[in-house]
Amino acid sequence: MPSSVDSHVLVIFGASGDLAQRKLIPAVFDLFRGGYLPEKFALLGASRTDFTDEDFRKKVVFDNEHFEQKDASDDDVKTFSEKLFYQDLASYDGEKDIEALAARLIKLDEEYGVGKNYIFYLSTPPKLYSTIPGALAKAGLNESEEGWSRLIVEKPFGYDEESAVKLNKDIQSYFRENTIYRIDHYLGKETVQNLLVTRFANGFFEPLWNRNYVQSVQITAAETVGVGSRGGYYDESGAMRDMVQNHLLQVLAHVAMEPPIRADAPSIRDEKLKLFKSLRPITKKDVKNQVVRAQYTEGRTKSGDVVSYRDAEGVPSESKTETYVGMKFFIDNWRWAGVPFFVRTGKCLPLKLTEVVITFKNPPQALFSEYDDYAMSCDNQLIIRIQPDEGMALEFGMKVPGEGFRVKNVDMDFFYRDLTKNDVPAAYTRLLLDCMKGEPTLYARGDSVEAAWAFIDPILKAWEADEVPLYSYTAGSWGPLQADALWKGEGSGWRNPSDSLTEKKHYTKL
Amino acid sequence: MPSSVDSHVLVIFGASGDLAQRKLIPAVFDLFRGGYLPEKFALLGASRTDFTDEDFRKKVVFDNEHFEQKDASDDDVKTFSEKLFYQDLASYDGEKDIEALAARLIKLDEEYGVGKNYIFYLSTPPKLYSTIPGALAKAGLNESEEGWSRLIVEKPFGYDEESAVKLNKDIQSYFRENTIYRIDHYLGKETVQNLLVTRFANGFFEPLWNRNYVQSVQITAAETVGVGSRGGYYDESGAMRDMVQNHLLQVLAHVAMEPPIRADAPSIRDEKLKLFKSLRPITKKDVKNQVVRAQYTEGRTKSGDVVSYRDAEGVPSESKTETYVGMKFFIDNWRWAGVPFFVRTGKCLPLKLTEVVITFKNPPQALFSEYDDYAMSCDNQLIIRIQPDEGMALEFGMKVPGEGFRVKNVDMDFFYRDLTKNDVPAAYTRLLLDCMKGEPTLYARGDSVEAAWAFIDPILKAWEADEVPLYSYTAGSWGPLQADALWKGEGSGWRNPSDSLTEKKHYTKL
Repeated sequence: MPSSVDSHVLVIFGASGDLAQRKLIPAVFDLFRGGYLPEKFALLGASRTDFTDEDFRKKVVFDNEHFEQKDASDDDVKTFSEKLFYQDLASYDGEKDIEALAARLIKLDEEYGVGKNYIFYLSTPPKLYSTIPGALAKAGLNESEEGWSRLIVEKPFGYDEESAVKLNKDIQSYFRENTIYRIDHYLGKETVQNLLVTRFANGFFEPLWNRNYVQSVQITAAETVGVGSRGGYYDESGAMRDMVQNHLLQVLAHVAMEPPIRADAPSIRDEKLKLFKSLRPITKKDVKNQVVRAQYTEGRTKSGDVVSYRDAEGVPSESKTETYVGMKFFIDNWRWAGVPFFVRTGKCLPLKLTEVVITFKNPPQALFSEYDDYAMSCDNQLIIRIQPDEGMALEFGMKVPGEGFRVKNVDMDFFYRDLTKNDVPAAYTRLLLDCMKGEPTLYARGDSVEAAWAFIDPILKAWEADEVPLYSYTAGSWGPLQADALWKGEGSGWRNPSDSLTEKKHYTKL
Repeated sequence: MPSSVDSHVLVIFGASGDLAQRKLIPAVFDLFRGGYLPEKFALLGASRTDFTDEDFRKKVVFDNEHFEQKDASDDDVKTFSEKLFYQDLASYDGEKDIEALAARLIKLDEEYGVGKNYIFYLSTPPKLYSTIPGALAKAGLNESEEGWSRLIVEKPFGYDEESAVKLNKDIQSYFRENTIYRIDHYLGKETVQNLLVTRFANGFFEPLWNRNYVQSVQITAAETVGVGSRGGYYDESGAMRDMVQNHLLQVLAHVAMEPPIRADAPSIRDEKLKLFKSLRPITKKDVKNQVVRAQYTEGRTKSGDVVSYRDAEGVPSESKTETYVGMKFFIDNWRWAGVPFFVRTGKCLPLKLTEVVITFKNPPQALFSEYDDYAMSCDNQLIIRIQPDEGMALEFGMKVPGEGFRVKNVDMDFFYRDLTKNDVPAAYTRLLLDCMKGEPTLYARGDSVEAAWAFIDPILKAWEADEVPLYSYTAGSWGPLQADALWKGEGSGWRNPSDSLTEKKHYTKL
């Protein structure tokens, strides 16, 4: 339950960057507004830009378009901004820079009494993910007898299995595993955490949550935007690295893992690891049958007209980077044997949403099959909308009023917004608070990140070797036709939803 | 699927009575409006009142406050009224009267060519339920080589087990069982029929529908009104005969029966019979532990101030007739062994509604029990609202936004009104049409009525012998406290709902 947060300094590396402005500073301000920050607290921004404290406060608070004052007074904002400091890393010599930073931390402690507790947040280019912890260790900031040191590492955590293993090895040589917080902001989403409550706090759902009753599971993360001006950055990663290996496999783990021994970090993380280890490997020769990659071509989406991915700014004209992945795979354990899992994600799709759909098997006998349209409409689906319009819907068959027993699909729905009048806390807000409290449940553990990479790696290798086709899809469509073929023999197909969770278009008024 | 209706005459005995005006004539008019009646059709009202055809048309159509013209034109109403005729049974000699009626039927056939098909609807005092069929048989109207004869018998079908067996024997000696239609208007309700679709057309519900996952089942039929001016009539029956033996046991059968071989009359009726036979008898000595009877005392309900039942017009001041029944019982079969079933019905309760509540067992482990209020809020319930506000709600636990894993109950809901823009057909409309088509699924079969009586009879006998207390409850309350005690050791207790299915009062906004 809510425990207090120790006095500490939050050090953000890459503090002049995009993430800090869009997410991190607003999240820390939310914590300040909510009274979650300790009285003695400082945020020390660090990057290579040559800023004074005032420059920094101006950039990330007063001039930051993503900073929302909400119900706070101007005085509150001022008080908050005065907890922000800046240290440049301008010498471009890691060790020297970190020495200077260490000195600044001592000074901050002397001035503000923030104690010897530090969170180091790596929001830098990935190539520094080893360098900075190394320099922190050298400066003795990796652990302390008088306090604690924690390291938050932003995504991407590795570029493939080998690099992730290497990165773990490096970081773990400087910080103990239980002080390393690998962030995956999907785990900060209430709806992702709620998957565990849905399954494990209710007598209703869990008995159905297995191979006996589940026909298939599908997870969709769709974006409407293209790469825009970030093509150069995106082309280095692609949809698989950007979305599947981290976010969607984490969602999968919440959907499919066994009940943990307890609702605590070690138990939950153990079960996630077990789940990742149970994924049936997609070997290089399976890739062409189970994974579809594609790039969008010119078209129109909700976000406007889009040029082909290969024509986007910064993208090489011969690029093979995928903007869409659709895949089918299996989990080899007692619960899920034989149940197909489908995951897809893409840019320039018709809607922006993330959802999980559990399709249940039909009843063993089609009792009402003599009444016309039963056969086509009887799929029972549980739809869990992760974002936006957070909620849940259950589709099932009801009797059409009148003679006989005609059946039509209807739905029941629940919206998360009905549960609370407060805003659901933003993912980064929640995750930062957890780290401040030393609560690692919603961060990825090193072994589990490696296991997720082990599953993805053979696919990336097959792609690099160009052993499978790269398809295309028109921007604004639901992806390449080849992804539909993954469903052959497996029933329902991709659920291509409308905008709202309960658009009531799934059935026709009679 | 929709089949056409043969030309026929619908003969209503008791045609000047309350039921004919309130339900039967409006139902036949609905069928007329909907185009369900055959071109050649006549309705012949019969009773002891001395009416002409015109008098009758005036009474049941033009002057009938329960007759709604809806979207029909005046011409339509006139056309309809001209299909209505009247035959008095004024000689008070059954045989003579029926002979006259037989002659009238021949005449109607000559004039209007309605064929030799007859439905005889017994909407008379129960003492005539044997006499009239006997006279019809004597007049040769019970079967015909040129057409068909069907007999609809209104409730109550018997007063206890013995009289029901006797009545079956009598009627079955005049009419073949497959031409006898014992009406129970609850079976005409869409929501009651929909129980079968909910269970048997969906992969989602049926796997949970058994002793492994169900904690308890409760059925409530509540009325807000008292006996009003009908105390004399009501005092002869009471809540058990009026509601439980027929309507609520039929609802129970739909909730608890095994899947039928096919969705046809013999298969469904076989399963209902089997269910009634599986009810563990409540022996006379069990009555005091499993059944609570009570009478309302003075109070205030939604319908206004109410005098005590014993002070109501026509009720003897020492009356022992119950206006409330609450009972607990078991079904001894593989599906339901050990699961307690609760049924209650009463007059002068806070709301008018009928609903079924399935309470599911808690998950095997209280995973989130360290987070405060989980234990008190985790009941999963499926609420099926039979009337009014027809629909379904599922209550379950979701995560409260914020730290840890606190759980609150929320609900998902579905309303039947969302399924169709047309009005759900009234029960009598549906049932009359079924009889016209020779479709008996939604009528009670003789053996099944006897089995239901066999279950109820020992309770009535224990009451008659005054072996158990008669409790009281204040009009406007949810019944006597003693009925709450039935739940001891069985979990959730009676669900005392608010007005709407989705009043959202089940959980508090945070």
